[in-house]
Amino acid sequence: MSALEFREARAEDLEAIIRLHEEDELGAHGDVWSPETRPAYEAAFAAIAKSPENMLFVAVDGDEVVGTFQLTFIPNLTGRGALRVKVESVKVKAARRSGGIGARMMAHVESVARARGAAMLELTSNKTRKDAHRFYERLGFSRSHEGFKKRL
Amino acid sequence: MSALEFREARAEDLEAIIRLHEEDELGAHGDVWSPETRPAYEAAFAAIAKSPENMLFVAVDGDEVVGTFQLTFIPNLTGRGALRVKVESVKVKAARRSGGIGARMMAHVESVARARGAAMLELTSNKTRKDAHRFYERLGFSRSHEGFKKRL
Repeated sequence: MSALEFREARAEDLEAIIRLHEEDELGAHGDVWSPETRPAYEAAFAAIAKSPENMLFVAVDGDEVVGTFQLTFIPNLTGRGALRVKVESVKVKAARRSGGIGARMMAHVESVARARGAAMLELTSNKTRKDAHRFYERLGFSRSHEGFKKRL
Repeated sequence: MSALEFREARAEDLEAIIRLHEEDELGAHGDVWSPETRPAYEAAFAAIAKSPENMLFVAVDGDEVVGTFQLTFIPNLTGRGALRVKVESVKVKAARRSGGIGARMMAHVESVARARGAAMLELTSNKTRKDAHRFYERLGFSRSHEGFKKRL
């Protein structure tokens, strides 16, 4: 745990990242790493890597990827032109949960966001993830909004 | 109303767009168009215009800006690499509300998102905006998530 480091994800981290998504029983996004799904993940990874407004991170303990999150920097008029940062796809390896990794990840999110001059962090969390909601509220997030989704 | 058109916002629309934000009594984002605030809005507008992943729209009836919204295209690993579109800062001119402009705006959002190959629309709405929630649910959005914010 003391060796936990954060860095931007590299192409060779992709399988480990998707394995973290696979462990997610609530999201129901059908994420699984296989020869069939790999090209779609590689294309999405390339799009994120190319984007100046997206950063995909991994939390690494030694050689092991134990967490991941994505940041999207959103220029916006609201709030007198305040830059926002959307936090997405926050995952901690199941076997390593409740060990403080999530809190350290979110502290890293804040430091990256502040360094970029952002005024606001935002994220959405499925209504069934009660533990996650308590976690974000402990970190000073306000549950002020309803989050809507529509599949196209 | 029959003349309603949608197009990307131009620099000369900026004051009219911020006037729509001024009418928003719930958001409490302190948005007001003045000589002091104008430079910040102009900088944010330039950042949005430069971004390949953000589009700011206006709904125009003749020469009048009657609505606005922003789209953010977010490349993402979740859902087998599905592109998401976040809808932000949806505003309809107060004097023109309940006339169907909002529904036509959201239909335009969907067509732009589909044309870009997006698999998912998402948005958040302040918990106090009960009318807006019913509106989004009528349009097929699912209120599946809690929306968290933290000011930095």
